[in-house]
Amino acid sequence: MSMLQSILADLDSRIDASVAHLFDLLRIPSISTDPAYAADCRRAAEWLVEDLKSIGFTASVRDTPGHPMVVAHHDGPAADAPHVLFYGHYDVQPVDPLELWDSAPFEPELIERDGAKVIAARGASDDKGQLMTFVEACRSWKAVNGALPCRVSVLFEGEEESGSPSLIPFLKDNAEELKADFALVCDTNMWNAETPAISAGLRGLVGEEITITAASRDLHSGYYGGAAANPIHILSRILADLHDAGGRVTVPGFYDGVHETPPDILASWKKLGRTAEGFLGDVGLSEPAGERGRSILELVWARPTAEVNGITGGYTGEGFKTVIASKASAKVSFRLVHDQEPDKIRTAFRDFVCARVPADCSVAFQEHGGSPAIQLPYDSPLLNTARAALSDEWDNEAVMIAMGGSIPVVGDFQKLLGMESLLVGFGLGNDRIHSPNEKYNLSSFHKGSRSWARILAALAADKQTGADR
Amino acid sequence: MSMLQSILADLDSRIDASVAHLFDLLRIPSISTDPAYAADCRRAAEWLVEDLKSIGFTASVRDTPGHPMVVAHHDGPAADAPHVLFYGHYDVQPVDPLELWDSAPFEPELIERDGAKVIAARGASDDKGQLMTFVEACRSWKAVNGALPCRVSVLFEGEEESGSPSLIPFLKDNAEELKADFALVCDTNMWNAETPAISAGLRGLVGEEITITAASRDLHSGYYGGAAANPIHILSRILADLHDAGGRVTVPGFYDGVHETPPDILASWKKLGRTAEGFLGDVGLSEPAGERGRSILELVWARPTAEVNGITGGYTGEGFKTVIASKASAKVSFRLVHDQEPDKIRTAFRDFVCARVPADCSVAFQEHGGSPAIQLPYDSPLLNTARAALSDEWDNEAVMIAMGGSIPVVGDFQKLLGMESLLVGFGLGNDRIHSPNEKYNLSSFHKGSRSWARILAALAADKQTGADR
Repeated sequence: MSMLQSILADLDSRIDASVAHLFDLLRIPSISTDPAYAADCRRAAEWLVEDLKSIGFTASVRDTPGHPMVVAHHDGPAADAPHVLFYGHYDVQPVDPLELWDSAPFEPELIERDGAKVIAARGASDDKGQLMTFVEACRSWKAVNGALPCRVSVLFEGEEESGSPSLIPFLKDNAEELKADFALVCDTNMWNAETPAISAGLRGLVGEEITITAASRDLHSGYYGGAAANPIHILSRILADLHDAGGRVTVPGFYDGVHETPPDILASWKKLGRTAEGFLGDVGLSEPAGERGRSILELVWARPTAEVNGITGGYTGEGFKTVIASKASAKVSFRLVHDQEPDKIRTAFRDFVCARVPADCSVAFQEHGGSPAIQLPYDSPLLNTARAALSDEWDNEAVMIAMGGSIPVVGDFQKLLGMESLLVGFGLGNDRIHSPNEKYNLSSFHKGSRSWARILAALAADKQTGADR
Repeated sequence: MSMLQSILADLDSRIDASVAHLFDLLRIPSISTDPAYAADCRRAAEWLVEDLKSIGFTASVRDTPGHPMVVAHHDGPAADAPHVLFYGHYDVQPVDPLELWDSAPFEPELIERDGAKVIAARGASDDKGQLMTFVEACRSWKAVNGALPCRVSVLFEGEEESGSPSLIPFLKDNAEELKADFALVCDTNMWNAETPAISAGLRGLVGEEITITAASRDLHSGYYGGAAANPIHILSRILADLHDAGGRVTVPGFYDGVHETPPDILASWKKLGRTAEGFLGDVGLSEPAGERGRSILELVWARPTAEVNGITGGYTGEGFKTVIASKASAKVSFRLVHDQEPDKIRTAFRDFVCARVPADCSVAFQEHGGSPAIQLPYDSPLLNTARAALSDEWDNEAVMIAMGGSIPVVGDFQKLLGMESLLVGFGLGNDRIHSPNEKYNLSSFHKGSRSWARILAALAADKQTGADR
């Protein structure tokens, strides 16, 4: 039996104990957004520190102005072994409405649901179960091999579910200590229960709020209607102009830095069989509303967007008020892909808006954040190594996907630590994260642990054979 | 001293008491559009009934499915005396945004503003101060003469600011009781503080609320952005399409029934000297936003409009939320002129909207009232009698104007009671009705009361001399 096979066998033999151990962590109600649970957050951090110490990590609870970080380090087998930083978060979402839970959210249970064995608890999938897959892989490596195959650092955050206010300062203050060859981030999903996935792309985001001011006060639409500028008309025109009839964004220069997705990747996405009817049918829609002539997966994974997230102006209460408002405002966000530059998009949008505001009216802008997209080359050796290791473990080959949303820590690692991230996670679309009855499939937990054992082995082997990363 | 002079002197001597009395009415927050103020609306009606009874009217609060009506009657000096129905409304507009008021909206104050003594309160001008000018005129007639010169009926409504849902049924059910020779309606403005005006034209109104529904729930703009329909985009497109580049309304058939205003009337309006710079400059604007190539007075008095009065959708709170809303809605009103038909406009607008809603989205419409425009001949004898009486009271001759706003009751009086209306009011363009810091000039209130005393005298004299009306 090879070393890897022995390690996988150890994970198999310990599975009941591993689940019981995870339950101890799940019992801690580490809800980060509610100050009432601050002590529980700290308790979860301390629990993780003790657990990592038991595997031989140098581990500590690190204070922040908010909830503490867990930082741990373990040497590799040699000075030139690959160095990875594993990231996860020990905080969880609130549990309300409590009455919709079938079991107590912080009393984990191993139950059968929809034909699968699942771990039911708040945080089972997001992200305690996920981060423990990596810890269990390390535990078996250490138990069987006496050493880890890579140099491993760990960063567990306690504020991911409440906006990560301490993360950027912490990364800046501890950049030297935390920088590794690359990060392993375990907070994403598989494609389905048989098919592991690696997220190679994450869309970026630019948020803007615009407020149009016309008259110096609200006006009576009888006295002034037909004569006075109406800011809702001006705003509607601007927002309508944002897209052409083909669904493309019309802001000049918007598509600078957007690349066409390689045909083989598009073909692999096509094979995943996600149809517009299926994806949109779940929410009562049927027709893709974005750029025409592109698949639903390309639209949400590899194309940029402009979306109005909120609009308000004039009288919006019950009944009717014949008023011409003085002001109207909208919150607009752009999802970015590839090499689109947030600052350029923001400037181009502001110019686009200003060109549509009459001379006797005015516009004010408020910035609501900006981050570029993350895109790893689909042919990167790091991705290929992980893909092969995952494909060995699961029934189906691993797929390279993208994600429509942002995972800010990935951008922070890139910007502050100059470090790319490998996004591998074992969650499923029906895990009900952030909702009542969150669960994590036992197979996600068990085969997830086995997957990390394999990935660590493969990364170490790559280094030995000199594979270029 | 003639009887009329004695009556005017009585009004002069009682002015402080009359203002204090008006304050009692202004203190009642009779906001009709908000159900929370229903009891206050009733209280205002009861206050008016008691006041009319004190002058010798037979008066009562009359229930409706909404807010009650006030109906009162007073005999004339002889069976063949002219019979007038005076109309006003005791309800007021909402007061938000409250933080923009310099004083509490329902704590009236007599203050100096821009060199004039003004009564500051919600409803001071629209319409409590206006309706009390007539009540005070009757009070002095009764006090000095022991009788009124005409037979007088009164109708005070409590739903004028919320679409008058009960008015038409009430007029139908009480047509016999309410029908008079003609109506006196006091809900309009003077030309300026020295120049009284009689309104011969009033724009009509069609109110509609549209709600676009796209997905069955709010969506995450990262997961769904670029794929799912955004109802704010659909709504913005509809609203932007409402006007062409020349400011004309694009709804098919919208201009059916709109006539060009006679050149001599346009010339008389030109003489009034109201420029776009002056009219719009008061509210911080300079460029007319409606149909190009028409004077500012023609735009607001004799041309129809489409205005969005309110819009809301998605996240409108502080900060940002990356959401694609399920729903977005707008309140839209059309000002009508001449022979435009409200029902046809409403139907054409709904067709216009439906044509722009994607097949997998839906739209719901809510009707918010409709009334045609009113246009009286500029040479009617009734208008001429009132014009002479007003010219006797004020520094300048009274002018015949039109109005941009609707007074639906005037159309209802015409249609249901076969009764024309004399529109005389003492509001001023800077009264800030429907806005924070509403006010009514003390001179409007005092000389308005004197004007009604004179008009009642003139109408009675007309009848005696057999003037043709």
